[in-house]
Amino acid sequence: MSTHPLEEILNPKSIAVVGASEDPNSQGNRFTKCLLDCGYQRKIYPVHPKATEVLGLKAYPSIRDIPDPVDYVISCIPASAVLGMLDDGSQNGVKCVHLFTGRFSETGRLEEAELEQEILNKARKTGIRLIGPNCLGLYYPRLGISFMGDLPRESGSAGLFSSSGGGSGFFVHLAALRGIRFSKVISGGNALDLNESDFLDYFSQDPETKIILMYLEGLKDGRRFVNSLKQAASVKPVIILKGGKGESGMRAAASHTAALGGSTQMWETAVTQAGAISAESFDELADLAVSFHFLPPVWGPRVGVTGGGGGHSVVGADECERGGLDVIPLPTEMREEFKSRGVPIWDWIGNPVDTSITGGSGLTGTDVLQMMARNQNFDLLIAIINEHAPAGREGIIAGHKTEVKGIIKVKKESTKPLLAVVSEKSTDTRNHSYWRWKDLSSVRTKLLAGNIPIYPTTERAAKAAGKLVDYYRKRRQQ
Amino acid sequence: MSTHPLEEILNPKSIAVVGASEDPNSQGNRFTKCLLDCGYQRKIYPVHPKATEVLGLKAYPSIRDIPDPVDYVISCIPASAVLGMLDDGSQNGVKCVHLFTGRFSETGRLEEAELEQEILNKARKTGIRLIGPNCLGLYYPRLGISFMGDLPRESGSAGLFSSSGGGSGFFVHLAALRGIRFSKVISGGNALDLNESDFLDYFSQDPETKIILMYLEGLKDGRRFVNSLKQAASVKPVIILKGGKGESGMRAAASHTAALGGSTQMWETAVTQAGAISAESFDELADLAVSFHFLPPVWGPRVGVTGGGGGHSVVGADECERGGLDVIPLPTEMREEFKSRGVPIWDWIGNPVDTSITGGSGLTGTDVLQMMARNQNFDLLIAIINEHAPAGREGIIAGHKTEVKGIIKVKKESTKPLLAVVSEKSTDTRNHSYWRWKDLSSVRTKLLAGNIPIYPTTERAAKAAGKLVDYYRKRRQQ
Repeated sequence: MSTHPLEEILNPKSIAVVGASEDPNSQGNRFTKCLLDCGYQRKIYPVHPKATEVLGLKAYPSIRDIPDPVDYVISCIPASAVLGMLDDGSQNGVKCVHLFTGRFSETGRLEEAELEQEILNKARKTGIRLIGPNCLGLYYPRLGISFMGDLPRESGSAGLFSSSGGGSGFFVHLAALRGIRFSKVISGGNALDLNESDFLDYFSQDPETKIILMYLEGLKDGRRFVNSLKQAASVKPVIILKGGKGESGMRAAASHTAALGGSTQMWETAVTQAGAISAESFDELADLAVSFHFLPPVWGPRVGVTGGGGGHSVVGADECERGGLDVIPLPTEMREEFKSRGVPIWDWIGNPVDTSITGGSGLTGTDVLQMMARNQNFDLLIAIINEHAPAGREGIIAGHKTEVKGIIKVKKESTKPLLAVVSEKSTDTRNHSYWRWKDLSSVRTKLLAGNIPIYPTTERAAKAAGKLVDYYRKRRQQ
Repeated sequence: MSTHPLEEILNPKSIAVVGASEDPNSQGNRFTKCLLDCGYQRKIYPVHPKATEVLGLKAYPSIRDIPDPVDYVISCIPASAVLGMLDDGSQNGVKCVHLFTGRFSETGRLEEAELEQEILNKARKTGIRLIGPNCLGLYYPRLGISFMGDLPRESGSAGLFSSSGGGSGFFVHLAALRGIRFSKVISGGNALDLNESDFLDYFSQDPETKIILMYLEGLKDGRRFVNSLKQAASVKPVIILKGGKGESGMRAAASHTAALGGSTQMWETAVTQAGAISAESFDELADLAVSFHFLPPVWGPRVGVTGGGGGHSVVGADECERGGLDVIPLPTEMREEFKSRGVPIWDWIGNPVDTSITGGSGLTGTDVLQMMARNQNFDLLIAIINEHAPAGREGIIAGHKTEVKGIIKVKKESTKPLLAVVSEKSTDTRNHSYWRWKDLSSVRTKLLAGNIPIYPTTERAAKAAGKLVDYYRKRRQQ
């Protein structure tokens, strides 16, 4: 537990859901159900003007009527009712209100923007802090707080602040499939009161958070953010996806979270100078989260690549170079070792290791991976799962089993950064359960269980690894 | 049927598999089984020194012993036996030998390169044409010829020439999941005799082939290729992935298919000047194939984007701009129509259409998509499937059904290019059949059945669409 003022706010002893109801299509119902289903063990108070019970919990007509103090409020009522609700809350010790309630400045309308400002003023007067408005609020799996029913229950080490609610749910699922779990996720919407800098400061000293991820559409206070970013990036990796970099994206950001964009150039400079890392898409945000989570520091760009067939080796080498990696020729001492072991293709095999030529050579791709792990010329390793070896179903499945076992062995024996590439597929209903794609799922399961990060393409693995090389190079220079 | 000399070679009336055997782990067995399983209706002759039968077919000790003429030979015997086999073949009218047999110049060894040259000389003397060596040869689904047991049986309109065998199998599966089927695929390996230019010429006049795809590691004759490319690109879209652009990739290409790389800069210039299209990865090759297959000409960059939640709309707008598209503001006449229909968010909703704000407005994302389809300010449309709408399982599944139905309706009513975005997932065994990801498979099934191309990300859809805009702009200028 930290002593940061947000710590108390994010650890409420009781939560009231204002606008809770029995209607399963209402967000008030969903938030209440989420707290029940996700195992929030403390007090939950549904608030509804008439209902005496919601989802089996005693309901109250207003916050004022709740007999015990309420720490945290989830507001699902219309914008026009928020001021009154804040008054009620201030009489019952409310520390923080998460305003799911939207339709404020993001509408681009003066009246709504003015109401938003009044709400901020009221919050300041009453001492109530606000998350939002126009957001999904908090996902804190350790405490059983969630904004979506099927996000992972287990806790992890990634902290996320996101301007987008749906985007944060999408991202939590996306990253979870790649082995990432979260300490806390805050969907912050318009960030009227508590903003990106507050949560960045919080994450930077939160012992539960090892990697800080942000999806930002705008900044409430650029100068403060740059300072917070410098501080945070000096202690933990901070990876930021900035939405609204282009003209149309900026327009969309304004209408989504009332965000004001700045110059993209200034943004990139600020991120780089602070020692943080930029991502260009939700996918890249996930790739970088995965890389920092699973990999030790990557001290250089010299990569050994194994496992691809011919085509994937050639294209993979190009993709590694584009990612800033250096696909060095196979070191002489490795060739000499092949020769002394009587490997007939000792002078032919290269880096990347084309596993379509190793058959019958007495040498497997994994053997070479193991030797690369021991060889000091390599800074990191990429193992591509070769999907289309010339074999039948049983041969391919058995081949992958052996391959994965070998990769996990290398990972256990070596501290060298090791990335695995397993492709994703656009399956339709008919072939969703086809053996090839189910087998890839099984490969992923085993690699993740072996703490090996997986990437859908060599291109993405290389791009992420290249950014890690840059990151650690800069840190070493500091 | 065309009158191109390759037409006869690619339509053999009989095929001998030299090196066929009962051993299921041998490639000779696999090729024979493929012909049987994939429905090759003409004569198949296994050739084996001792066996009298292979997979239920009468086997012969050599090609010379086959009582009937043999058109096409698949060679799975060691390199050292090829010269003799060519002699045998020439006595039995063989027109073409596909040399799966490898270990020639790609090994980087002088002796092997010399043997390869002798084989070429012998082929020239005997008049036998060669595919390969070091390749998987032909996949021609209409005729039942295949080099992998589980490639689609149905025929299609994409022709592929690939330097890589495993890569071509991988690609056929990848593209098949996206709705692409093939006329013919040639894995050409070292392209000793018949090379990329021969097949490019062939595809260019093959009525079965509407789109030409190439994965190339090197060129046998650069000048000829540039001429063939110009000619082919003037009649059909030609999309090329060049492997071995970087230093290490070039090294890998030499050891994979003995390819000699040239300057990347010269390559890009040649492709652009010929009016062909460059792809940077197998994924992009698939994205472009999908785009040309499903889409009508895209005459301009002005895109309407719908269906994303807030975050995906903002990031999607950026991704569209990076792809060269122009996410124009919503036209005034559309806003006026919203207003006249009493849509309360008439002044708020924009392009991209953030579907997280349309709920209860009397307007769905699909309504807007339909209006965009009718509005002449838009050149193309991108519909993002919003995965993380705030709803439970039933709500999301039902929402997707309605959404997809709407998208298909728009597609039916309009000739405007329409692309759909459905994300891919790195599922593991436990969540492979999770309802969210199975539902996405169902969404893909329906969109493909509606002839709507699907892309895993807005970034990839936009990048592909941007290249189509360039392509058609250039063609219009010609």
